[in-house]
Order: sequence, then C-alpha cells, then structure tokens
Amino acid sequence: MEAEQSSPPPPPSAGDDCLVFKVNGERFEVPEIDPSTTLLEFLRSKTRFKSVKLGCGEGGCGACVVLLSKYDTVNKEVENFTVSSCLTLLCSINGCSVTTSEGLGNSKDGFHPIHQRFAGFHASQCGFCTPGMCMSLFSALANAEKTNQPQASPGFSKLTVSEAEKAIAGNLCRCTGYRPIADACKSFAADVDMEDLGINSFWNKGDKKEIRLSRLPSYNPKDHTCPYTEELEDEYKSTRLLNSEKVSWYSPVTIKGLQNLLHPDMVENGARIKLVVGNTGNGYYKETDIYGKYIDLRYIPELSMFRKHNSGIELGAALTISKVILYLKEKSKANEYSSGDLLFTKIADHMEKVASGFIRNSASLGGHKHETITMEEFLSRPPLEPKDVLLSVHVPFHEPTRIDGSVHTNSKLFFDTYRAAPRPLGNALPYLNAAFLADISCDRNGSLVNNIRLAFGAYGTKHATRARKIEEYLTGKILSLRVLDEAIKLVKGAVVSEEGTSYAAYRSSLAVGVLFEFLNSFSSVASAISAGSSEELSGSVLEGTAKSINDKISQTGRPPLLSSAKQVIQSSRDYYPVGEPMPKFGAAIQASGEAMYVDDIPSPPNCLHGAFICSTRPVARVKSISFKSNQPTDVISVKDIPREGENIGCMAMFGSEPLFADDLTRFAGDLIGFVVAESQKNANLAAKTALVEYDTEGLDPPILTVEEAVERSSFFDVPPYLYPQEVGDFSKGMAEADHKILSAKIKLGSQYYFYMETQTALAIPDEDNCMVVYSSIQCPEFAHRVIARCLGVPDHNVRVLTRRVGGGFWWKGTKSNAVATACALAAHKLRRPVRIYLDRKTDMIIAGGRHPMKITYSVGFKSDGKITALHLDILINAGVTADISPIMRVT
Amino acid sequence: MEAEQSSPPPPPSAGDDCLVFKVNGERFEVPEIDPSTTLLEFLRSKTRFKSVKLGCGEGGCGACVVLLSKYDTVNKEVENFTVSSCLTLLCSINGCSVTTSEGLGNSKDGFHPIHQRFAGFHASQCGFCTPGMCMSLFSALANAEKTNQPQASPGFSKLTVSEAEKAIAGNLCRCTGYRPIADACKSFAADVDMEDLGINSFWNKGDKKEIRLSRLPSYNPKDHTCPYTEELEDEYKSTRLLNSEKVSWYSPVTIKGLQNLLHPDMVENGARIKLVVGNTGNGYYKETDIYGKYIDLRYIPELSMFRKHNSGIELGAALTISKVILYLKEKSKANEYSSGDLLFTKIADHMEKVASGFIRNSASLGGHKHETITMEEFLSRPPLEPKDVLLSVHVPFHEPTRIDGSVHTNSKLFFDTYRAAPRPLGNALPYLNAAFLADISCDRNGSLVNNIRLAFGAYGTKHATRARKIEEYLTGKILSLRVLDEAIKLVKGAVVSEEGTSYAAYRSSLAVGVLFEFLNSFSSVASAISAGSSEELSGSVLEGTAKSINDKISQTGRPPLLSSAKQVIQSSRDYYPVGEPMPKFGAAIQASGEAMYVDDIPSPPNCLHGAFICSTRPVARVKSISFKSNQPTDVISVKDIPREGENIGCMAMFGSEPLFADDLTRFAGDLIGFVVAESQKNANLAAKTALVEYDTEGLDPPILTVEEAVERSSFFDVPPYLYPQEVGDFSKGMAEADHKILSAKIKLGSQYYFYMETQTALAIPDEDNCMVVYSSIQCPEFAHRVIARCLGVPDHNVRVLTRRVGGGFWWKGTKSNAVATACALAAHKLRRPVRIYLDRKTDMIIAGGRHPMKITYSVGFKSDGKITALHLDILINAGVTADISPIMRVT
Repeated sequence: MEAEQSSPPPPPSAGDDCLVFKVNGERFEVPEIDPSTTLLEFLRSKTRFKSVKLGCGEGGCGACVVLLSKYDTVNKEVENFTVSSCLTLLCSINGCSVTTSEGLGNSKDGFHPIHQRFAGFHASQCGFCTPGMCMSLFSALANAEKTNQPQASPGFSKLTVSEAEKAIAGNLCRCTGYRPIADACKSFAADVDMEDLGINSFWNKGDKKEIRLSRLPSYNPKDHTCPYTEELEDEYKSTRLLNSEKVSWYSPVTIKGLQNLLHPDMVENGARIKLVVGNTGNGYYKETDIYGKYIDLRYIPELSMFRKHNSGIELGAALTISKVILYLKEKSKANEYSSGDLLFTKIADHMEKVASGFIRNSASLGGHKHETITMEEFLSRPPLEPKDVLLSVHVPFHEPTRIDGSVHTNSKLFFDTYRAAPRPLGNALPYLNAAFLADISCDRNGSLVNNIRLAFGAYGTKHATRARKIEEYLTGKILSLRVLDEAIKLVKGAVVSEEGTSYAAYRSSLAVGVLFEFLNSFSSVASAISAGSSEELSGSVLEGTAKSINDKISQTGRPPLLSSAKQVIQSSRDYYPVGEPMPKFGAAIQASGEAMYVDDIPSPPNCLHGAFICSTRPVARVKSISFKSNQPTDVISVKDIPREGENIGCMAMFGSEPLFADDLTRFAGDLIGFVVAESQKNANLAAKTALVEYDTEGLDPPILTVEEAVERSSFFDVPPYLYPQEVGDFSKGMAEADHKILSAKIKLGSQYYFYMETQTALAIPDEDNCMVVYSSIQCPEFAHRVIARCLGVPDHNVRVLTRRVGGGFWWKGTKSNAVATACALAAHKLRRPVRIYLDRKTDMIIAGGRHPMKITYSVGFKSDGKITALHLDILINAGVTADISPIMRVT
Repeated sequence: MEAEQSSPPPPPSAGDDCLVFKVNGERFEVPEIDPSTTLLEFLRSKTRFKSVKLGCGEGGCGACVVLLSKYDTVNKEVENFTVSSCLTLLCSINGCSVTTSEGLGNSKDGFHPIHQRFAGFHASQCGFCTPGMCMSLFSALANAEKTNQPQASPGFSKLTVSEAEKAIAGNLCRCTGYRPIADACKSFAADVDMEDLGINSFWNKGDKKEIRLSRLPSYNPKDHTCPYTEELEDEYKSTRLLNSEKVSWYSPVTIKGLQNLLHPDMVENGARIKLVVGNTGNGYYKETDIYGKYIDLRYIPELSMFRKHNSGIELGAALTISKVILYLKEKSKANEYSSGDLLFTKIADHMEKVASGFIRNSASLGGHKHETITMEEFLSRPPLEPKDVLLSVHVPFHEPTRIDGSVHTNSKLFFDTYRAAPRPLGNALPYLNAAFLADISCDRNGSLVNNIRLAFGAYGTKHATRARKIEEYLTGKILSLRVLDEAIKLVKGAVVSEEGTSYAAYRSSLAVGVLFEFLNSFSSVASAISAGSSEELSGSVLEGTAKSINDKISQTGRPPLLSSAKQVIQSSRDYYPVGEPMPKFGAAIQASGEAMYVDDIPSPPNCLHGAFICSTRPVARVKSISFKSNQPTDVISVKDIPREGENIGCMAMFGSEPLFADDLTRFAGDLIGFVVAESQKNANLAAKTALVEYDTEGLDPPILTVEEAVERSSFFDVPPYLYPQEVGDFSKGMAEADHKILSAKIKLGSQYYFYMETQTALAIPDEDNCMVVYSSIQCPEFAHRVIARCLGVPDHNVRVLTRRVGGGFWWKGTKSNAVATACALAAHKLRRPVRIYLDRKTDMIIAGGRHPMKITYSVGFKSDGKITALHLDILINAGVTADISPIMRVT
C-alpha cells in the first residue's frame, strides 16, 4: 500500500488531456473548456439536448437530473446513477455516458413507456420538471432489475410501489400536486394495485385489471435497459483519466500524486486549488471564486475504500453518500459485526434523508461537512483549508458499557437519529439533526441509563455539538417523568441557535421533542414490563423490545410516504368530450424533453445575455453603477429608452409601472440597470458584483408597512370598477347575529410565486425596426403593448411569442413584461439579439413578493355558523405607496 | 532606389500581425483567419451587415459592391472606391474602412437620400441588387465632389446625368429594366432634366420644377460625404501593413523583401504561394487551390509607379486599372507628349470597357493577362509561373514611320481599339478585342498605308496575336475596294477560334467587321478629298479628319449610353389608389440592405450547409459516391427518405417529380446526393470534387432531342384540362387565306432563368417532428406539401416561410421545392438546422434549363395580315421523355 502511495502518477496515456464522454450515444471530445463549466451548461449550450432544465442551480429541484453511466473497473460492470447536472462539473464525467430524457425515447424514434405513461396519467402539466422526473424513475427501474428480488410479472418492474414513489423524491413539481406523477411511477411497480391508480387516458372506469394492463404502454425491463452503455464497456474498460493543463484539471491516482499537485512549487502564481468529488457543495455555498487548478479525488484508492478494523469501519472520504448507505445496509444485513448493525442501519437510514438520491449519488462523504457521523473533535475545529484533504471517516463499533470490566446485566445499546426538515424526503435543509446513543438496562425498577451520548446539529450553530451537561445528568439515572422533565429543561439551554437563525424557537422545541421521544420509549418499555409480565427479562426479550422500539419510532417518527387514495370523478356525457381524461397535447414531448421552452431556443448568432441590477435601497437616488473586473458589454438603464418611447415595464391593474427606476428607486428590488454580456454566466457575475452608489440625502424615509402608508396617506387609486359594493344591510346583519367579531385583523406576509422555470425572454431585432420577442409569459398581449410603448414603435412592429410557460401562477402574467421589455430595449439599442434566464435569487427579488396585505374584518354570525354580516378592509402594502381598498363588504 | 530595394522589410510594428479594419464605423480585429476568406464571406457571416449580397461570386453582377476607404499616404488623403467584396480578400482591406448600404443610412438612424430616391422612383423591385446599386451611386457622388467641376445648384451633385447613368454600369438588375434605377441616379445630377425623370411617388404629373425639386428627399453633397473616414485619417496616417504568420499573409515593401519571401528557403514544405493585388482574377479562374502563403504586392513602390521615359511610359504592374485609366487620361489632357496622346486616350477608353468600375478599382494592370496593351512577345510566352512577378508594363510612344530617315508627306498615325461583348459597358467577357495602329498618308490618289499593326485577341486563342500576313499585304498599298476585299479574306483565315469556342463564326465575322470599319474610314476620307475639295492637305486638316474619324467611330461604334424617354401613364381615378405611384412597402429597407432574405437569416447554432451533387450522366446507375479529402459531414440521398415518406421534390403541372434519382438518373443534372458540411464553402468543395461512379451497362441510350423522343414514343401525359381546343374551322380558315404557310418549324433552345439571388433554403427542426423551412420560393404552399410528403409527416408539422424572393421568374415557384425539401430531409435525418445557398453554377444546372421546345405551325392569313387559320404543335423535350402537346389550335 505504501509503495502504491509513493509511486508517481502514471504518465498520462494518449488522449488523457482531452475530455471525452457520450451524451445519448453521441461522442463528444472537448480539448479545452473552462473547468468550472457544469454538465448542465454544456448540455444546454453545446448540444441539442435541452430536456435538462435549470430550475434552481443548487441540486434542489431535480429538473436537471440525468443518468450517468460509468464503467466500474473494480466490479467490472457499468454503474448507472442519477446526478444533478447543474452541480456536476463537466470534467468529472470524463469517460462516462450521459443519458437524458431525449435519449430514452423521442418523437422520432418512439417514446419510452415512461414518457407515454407520464402523458397518459396527466403527470405533466407545465412540463418543466417532467424530463428530470422521468430520469429519476428510469434510473430506479434500471437499478431495480439488478437486485435479487424475484422477477415481476410480465409488463412490470421489480420495483415496489414504495420504491417507485421514492424514486422521484427530490424532483419538485409545482403544478400537479404529485398524485398523477406518483400514479405514473407506481404503474410500473411489481406490487401495484391498479385500482389505486388515478384517472388516466388508458382505461375506463370499471375496466378489468387485465384490460387495464393491456392498455398501459407496454414495458419490458429487458427491452428498456440503460442505453448507450455497450460501447462504454468496450471503450472505457481501462479507466480514462483526465489530466490536462489546458483545462487545469488533474486526476491523481495516489496520495503521493495528490501531494505533488498540492505542493506550493506546483501551484503557479498562487492559483487557488479546488478539490472535487461531486461538487454538490456548490449547491449550498454557491461560490463564485475562480480556481486555477481542479483536482479530482475520485481515483485515489485510499479515498474510496471501505475497510473493517477491529475497532470499527473506515470509509474513504471520497465515497459517495449513496455508496456508504449501500455498504452500511449490506453490512448490517449480513450481520457481519457482533454489534453495531443497528447503528449502521440507523446511520444509513438517516443518510437517506439527506438531500436527494441524485445528490447522494455524487456527493462525497467527506465533502459534506455537516454530516452527523463525523467526529466531534473534527467538527469543532475550524473548517478545512482548501488544500487539506480529508482521507476517511472512521465509524467505531459500540459495545455496551462495561462497569468494572463486565457488561451490565440486561444492558443494551439503543441508537437513533432524527432529522426535521420542511420535507421528509428530498432536498431540504434541516431545521435540526440529532443522533442519540444510549446504553440502557431495563428491569422492573425501570430503565437505567448506563451511558448516553446526545448530539445535536444543523440548528443554527457552526457545527454539531454534544449535549454533555444532559449526558452527565442522565448517566446513572433511572428514567422517570421528573428526570425527563429536567433533561428537557437542560436541552432548552443547550440547543440554542445563533442570532439571526430562522425559526430559532421551533428548532429548540424540536430538540426537546426528539429527546423526549427517544427517552420516553424506555420509560414505556419499563412500564410495560413492570405492569405485570412475569417473564424473565432475558437478553433476547430486551433485544426484541429494542427492535420494536426502533420500529415504533420508524412508524411514528416517519409516516409512510406511500400515499393511497381513491379518486372518483363523475363524468357526464352531456358535454362530451369535456371532462374526458384525454391526454394533453404535447405531454409526451414534455416528458421526453423535446418540448421547446424559451430558454431552449438556441441562441441566435451574436446573442447577448442580460442580468438585472436591482436596487438594495428603497427611495434612493442611484448616483453611479460601476464594475470591478467583470466589465459587461453594456448597461441599459432608463437613459436608453428612446425619445419616442416611454419608461414602462408593465401594465397592471392599478395602472402602468415603470421599467427602470427613474429619479428614485421605488423599493428595494426596483430595477436600476440591465447588464448585457457575452454569456449568462458573465452577465450574472457582473450584475452580482456591480457597485452601486446611492444617495438618500433629503429624501423621506421609505414606507415599509401598511400602517406607515396609512399614516402618510400614501394610497393607490382604486379604479371605479373595483370599488367595493355593499351587499345587504351590514347593521341589520350585525344586529341579527348571535355572535359578533366586531373588529379583527389578519396580516399576510409577502410570498414568492415559485415556478420551475424562472423568468426568461429572448428578443431578436428584425428588419425595419421590428422586434421579435419570445417570452415565458402568460399574457403575450400585455408584453406586446408594453414593448411597443417602451421602444416607441408601432404595435405591429412587435411580435411576442409564448411557446410554453414552465409554470406561471399569474406572476408570468405581470412580472414577465418587464423581463421581456428589458431584453427588447437592449436588443433595440445594440441591434443584437438579447436574452435572459433569471437566476433563482434574482427571480425571487424581481418576480417574488406579492404585496403584503392587512385585512381588517368584522363578522356577525349565527350559532349554526351562517354569516349574517361581513365587512373586509384589505390594505395592500407596496413599499412606498399603499392601497386602501375595501374590496368586499358582504352580508 | 536600389538601396531601398535591397533593404530588408521593416520589422512589423505593433499590431502588424493582426488584421484591423472598420465596417460602417465598427472596428474589427481579426488575429486569425483563413487567408482565402473574402470580404463578402466575412461581412455576411461575422457581421450584421447583410446588405452585401452574393450574386455571382465573380465580380460580374455588383450585388456585393461596397465602398472601401483607404488612406493614401502619398497623396495624404482618403481614397474612396468601390470593390466587389466577393473577390476582395479580407486581408487586403487591412487598415481600410468599409461602408455598406446599411452604413449610409437605415431604418433606425434614418435613410440616405439615395435609399429614399431608389424607393420613390420604384427602382427596387426584388431588392437583391439594390444595396450594391446604392453603393456604386454613392461612390460616384462622393468622388464627383472631388473634381474641379463647378459647384452644382443646391440639392444636386457635381455628377452629370451621363456619369450618373454610368455609375451603375456593372450592377445587374433583373427586375426593373433599369429605367427607374437610372432615374433615381439621374435625379442627383447637376444637369438633370426633371421632365425626363419617370413616374415616381414624389410629385404629380404637371408639377413645376421647383415643386418637384422640393419634393425630392433632400441631398446636400456636404452633408452626405463618405462616413467613417475621419478616424481612418487619424489611425492610419502611417500605412498599416499586415505581416502575419498566423494568417500566412505578407506585405513586402521592397523588391528585395518580396524576393526573400519567394525564396525557396522561406517557403515551408513547398507551400504554394499566391501573389495578390485585387484577387479579381479569381472571378474568372475560380480557383479552388489552397495556398500556403499570400503575398500582397501593393506596397512595393516599383510595382505602383508611373514613369515617363523618352521612349514611352512605364506603368507599375500592381497599379489598378482605374488608376492607369486616370493617369492616361490626365496625361493626354495635359498634352504632355508630343504624340501618342491619341493612343493613350484610346487605350484608356478601351480599358473603361473592361469589366466594371468596382472591378477596375482593385484589379491590377499586370494581373490581367488578357489586356491588349501588353506586348506580343510577352503574350506568346507561356503563362507566368506563380512565383514570377510582372513588375511593369511599358507603353512606347509612336511616331509616324520614317522612310529613308524622313517622315512621309502627310503621314499621320491612326489608332483605334474595338471590343465586342454582350454588353457595351459592365462586366461581360468579350467575343473579340482588336487594336489597330496605322500610319497613313492621304492625298488625291487615296490613302496609302505606310505601316500598319493589327492585333486581335479574346476570340478563342490562348493569347492575342498580330495578323502579320494582313499587315504585310496592306503595307505600301493604297486602300481600294479590292484591297479591302483581299484584306478581309485574309482576316477570315487569321482570326480562327480554337475548337470548342462558342460563337466561332460570329467572332470571325466581327474581326472582319472591325477591320473593315477601321480601313474604310480612310477610303472615305480619301474619296471625300478626291471628290472636289481644293484645299491643301495640310497636316492640320488631316489631323482634324483623323479626329473626326475617331469621333465618328465613337458615335457609331458606341451608341451613347444615355437613355432619354418620356413615359406617359394615364392614371384613372376610378380605382384610386390602384395605379397611383405609391412607394413599395419595404423599398427603403431593400435599398439600405436591411431587408431580410433567406440567406440573411443568421445561421442557427449547429447549422449545417448543403450542396448538391448532380449527375453528369443521363440514364445511368450511380454505383458509388466517394470523396477524396473533403469528407463532408454526411451525404443525403434517396436512401435517407423515411419509410413513411416519399421520393418527391416537386409537384408540377405534369405530376410530381422525384427529389433524388432513384435507380436511374433521369438526365444530366439530376440530383443524386446532397452533401452537408460545417460551412457552405466546404459543402460546395466536397460536392464539386466528389467522385461518382456510374454504370450504364444494358441501359438504353438517353433521349436527347425532341425527334428522338417522338421516335421512341416517349411522351408526357397531358392532363385533360390542358388538351388543346380547336377554335373555328381550320380547313375553312386555310381555304379563305390569301397566303399560307403550310408547315414550318421553330426550335427553341433551353434557357436559364437568371435571378440575382440563387436558390436558397434554411430548414430548422422544431419539436415533435416539426420542420420550419425558410425558402426563397414563390409558392410556399407547394413546398409545404412536398416537404410533408417527402418526410412522411402530417402537413401541419411543416411550416414554410417565404420572407422575400430575390428574383423568381417562376423558377422559384418550381425548382425551389427540391432545394427546400433536400434541406428539410437532411435536417430531419440529422436533427440539426441545414441550409443551402446555391453557387451560381449549380443553380444553372439545377434550376436552369426550361425544356427546349420545338414548334411546328401552319398559318393562313389575309393580305392585310389577319390570321384566318393557325395550328401549333408544341413539343417539349425533357431529356428522357418528351411531351407532345398541341397546346393551341387557333383559327
């Protein structure tokens, strides 16, 4: 081993300096590329495979999921797994085969049954998330066939209904409510109950099972294996390693080789070094740093090994989380270790809740510093320096505590982990992580804590911590209500978020809850035993009890994901075919990813890309905008609106809105500039790092609440047709009421309209002062007029095309106008095509935020709940002005 | 001088290895480029200035004319001149400013009065030639202001009507008939007669001159000078020379430097060298050779000098023809030389008939080997080796022949040149050139030939020749009818075209004609004198006579180009505004070049370019198609038509036509393959150099004439609705006729439908098996159906857009179908956009050739010409099949 470590990296073989991979069977050779390029960027800009969508850019939505096939030289087989292409660096797929949804099937070569069933089950609405969903399901189906499960009946996969449902965990959808998607996925499962599948275009209500099955687009696991992998086996049987000076990407195969690359002498001009495994950390850190050298750690055997020691197991730091989970589960199943199997299962279970499958498939164990399995000592040290390399993680075996050298009678180890996050599965940052390890003896006196370790993390501190005070308090105690009560008080003092952490009180109460749940189980066991069983408390009984406790926790702590429901829809033939479950036109090409959204339209030659600079100050003068190093091609602002034109960015309910801030910014988030650059990446970077000088001298402070707006009489004009109408006699209604709420208030905060596809537009100047604008807008007729007025050209000079909207929810009816108009204005000035695809953060600033509202109401109602009088006053806050609009007055 | 020659070329100054120039004020820096790239290719593919159209690619049509502005370091002023951008190599415009029609004005910044007047005079029909026309006129207007002519009245140029008309000589138009174009040009002229200008949208019939003038879009020479030249003066006051290894382009400044570059040691791997001045020769030779080194000869003083010796004048070989003309004219005006001024004027006049102004502006004297002024000895030598450099041309002074040391009494030199070509001015290859120099003495006895030189060229031999036998015969003879007759017989024997020369007999008879015209003048003079004048035949009288002869030739040989006509159009108000001279919508943007034709649509990313391989054999099997070195991306043929599709390329009057030859080629020119490559240049080259193996074993010979078709009963089916109808009683009509033609025949050959824009299409695959095709087609509905049937997709999957047609003449109604369908088929197969812009030669093969016809007719008519009976049988020959269709039978 040592000899291997000290040997120099082998000389690169022919072609090692050229990145080679396949996409849907097409071979790509890339001799030069910016190593920070992601697989998503490459696919979307250099290939015709646009099914790979940019949703969040942080591995959080699954819209960009692709299948990666890689030849595993150790197991001598092709591995197929999903990854987020938005995080995967292109160089890290050297020697791989990438499959996108178009690669599974398409309108020309025929659709894959996944596509057909997504269409038939109405599982694709806006369609933006669908190709990623399809890839997640495909990967699950392909890998299910490799398991030892018995062969399913013809037309079905080995996959279970539960696995089918979990297959798409982490793939977000904003339209369907998931039910039809889950149905499409479950329809492949070996154990599916056809009755349980919802409305679809394949069969009629009441059709027999055989008929239903025959109507499903046929699936045969053998016919629908992973494509494009045969050549991979031929070509890549010996691992192909990228070592390229041009690309600044290196793949050392020994620790020594790695050390050489990290040696200061080898680093030119102090260039920053990036150590890469899956690059999933970028989804969280979103770094914009520029690195001079990328080192891929995946080919150093020490970093990718599993090893069993007497004291525990050692896991290479570059192992993916998925592989660690697999390994831990296999080990615990195999019962290889005298103890600790419970612990390994629990750790594996916990890890399955971290991020999504397509993230765990490439995220490394070591790279994920917030994992609870890492050692306390390690965690409490400052973060690793960029050049430090974490080699492996050691997980010790645990044996019951020995007192005076011998194990306590009936002593048993209990271990459990907890994770509370907005979603039980799939990508979501946790509010709290916790892991508890306890050595407990139970007898008729109760449960005695021989030893206990309590770790809490992710609740708003720099790193996870041990709650030592509570551990000390509990050790040697018999668990009683009083003891539990005291422990809980201590938790409240121990789990305290840092200032500025959201939901701090909630996190703290979560800590209380999980500790109570863990400890209370033992109390219950003890009570049960003391309640009358005369059985000997043999070790085996306790073991069984422990298992049941853990199972119970599984059942209660994690409600089964599997959803089951019956959907009964009464369809009348009166308005046939209205109400019939007809497949949506274009649903199949949405699933295959061939459906063309605005950002899928290839950039015309000479196209520029835009990004917005938003004001960070409400009610301020913008004195100047400057750029440090990322000088954009141009900055468009209110000054660039043609003399014949108008500063207009939207025609809304309460009148038109300006495109750009003029003398004063109206609110934080107001548009003050539109930078254009040669790529979206550069435009985003320029906008993000722009230096804006503000001046607020002599200006009134902004109005930030509804109350301030009322106080300063800053109101919208409400158009007459929106004036409230009184219905009935309010006083009479109130007089007749059994119960009255004379006055009460509801305050609604602002809200971000989350759609999978961010705001986007592409403006192409045409001959004779004409402008063609592709916009992801729900109301192209609005953009048409706004653009014509802004540019000061006749309406017929503007053509606005909405091909598809990747989710709208009305904010693509209003906010899209400004986005489209800014592109048109830039294209008009520069006489070049200009496009934009907003990053999620800017989208949240610009398009996010429905006005916060305050509702004051009075209600009178009868004892049976019938309303006799209702009066609502709705106040909408819009930053500097507010609208007092008693929209409704009902009796 | 010698010192200068031997000094090494100066070390390149900073930036000398980077090509720098401006286009419409935009600066371009091009560090690397294929040196064979033309200015046209660059403008059309790398800039947004698409006004520069590719018409013929040989400097023959003027559609690509641009204005070049160059700082002349000798005269210290900016020179402005037009060039054909299709021939001009990009590297040769280093340090120049290019102005295209968009640069003169446009829809955004306002149109130039040239654009406005072209629109108002209806001078732009299809619009494809218009931007080039505008540039030619603009150059003439700009340069007119530099002359010493008196200032014109306000609103007018110094340009004369005659010059205005000549300004566009060489710019071809196929739509307008030139009248409106000439009107637009003349409207600027100082001496224009407003009454002479035709119908236009500016004024009404009967408006007074002042009103007319006020209605013309205003022109002020001072406001409309050459744009984009000020910076040129600042930046390029010292000549900027391109010397770049990357580009393989060198600009030596001394003979020695040139020799160094030509030295075998300096030429890597025997790379071929190209000596460049204007590259106009490529228009004729159309070379496809690849050169390893380009040497620009324009900066060597010796090659660009004018020098007067005692024996004559010497002209640097790299001087442009335009400069030589200017020099010769100036010299003859200045009367600097004791004799020979006549000769210089004549040579200058002759040179003005060679090619077009925009060619003469860059074509070099030396480079044009077919010039008649070059020496006989030089001409009879084999062509120059690529590395030989012609330094200069010496034009000797000529004095009357001395006999025994003294000049013959009344002896006078006469010189004239002749050029017969399809067009008197503008680019057209001559049928014959001739130059005659005679020393004649005239007295009452007649005209005595003391000495004579007769040169003929361009009639179908390798080089121009002296007709020595005729010279010998004529010398010492008094010109008489008998002598003339004998001389003419000798010409017939001397001017004999080589085998295969077109119009051989015509060329020979032209030679007879011009010699007769030259010699007969002297006979006439002599006759006139002998007829009675008692005047002394003083030298001055003879001189006057000589002048009048030459003038006479001018008048008779060259009809004045200036056209003058009155156009009276009766417009009725009954159908107002029908018949009103309203400006055509889009005419101004056609003039400014902003109008978008199919080939002006920027190539979508990943676009491929196609080129047709046409069969060279009628009725043959294609065994194989292979490529030597220019391997294209793919070759589409009949095999690529989808199973659901159909081999269809056109739906014509007599049924549909296949797209590709299937088992057998139908005729020479039948489509057998469609190569696609990454650029149009590569596709054309691959198609041109493809090796096609044919097999004709066991096949019937092709039918090549109408007679053969009839003999072999090979007929088209004529659809019933086209059956001829008999009108009246033919026998009765014949019986009543005073005169009868019982049977006669007319044979019409095939014909090429010349449109300025060749056939072109762009096919872009869209989602869901859809195809968007931009085609320069007159009937998009035909292409729509043909493409859908060929691809085997529903009609609604195909969208065909005709934005503009750059001239059609019906062949863009039929032949465009196959062009659009081939692109669509390739795009369908390869799932990439595919476009084509046919080179003129392939266009002539594919789209050219209306079927040759044979008409047999019988007519009976009265003495007053009234037809009493008419019977026509029209036979159309279509290669392998013929159509016997007695279309019309009229009485």
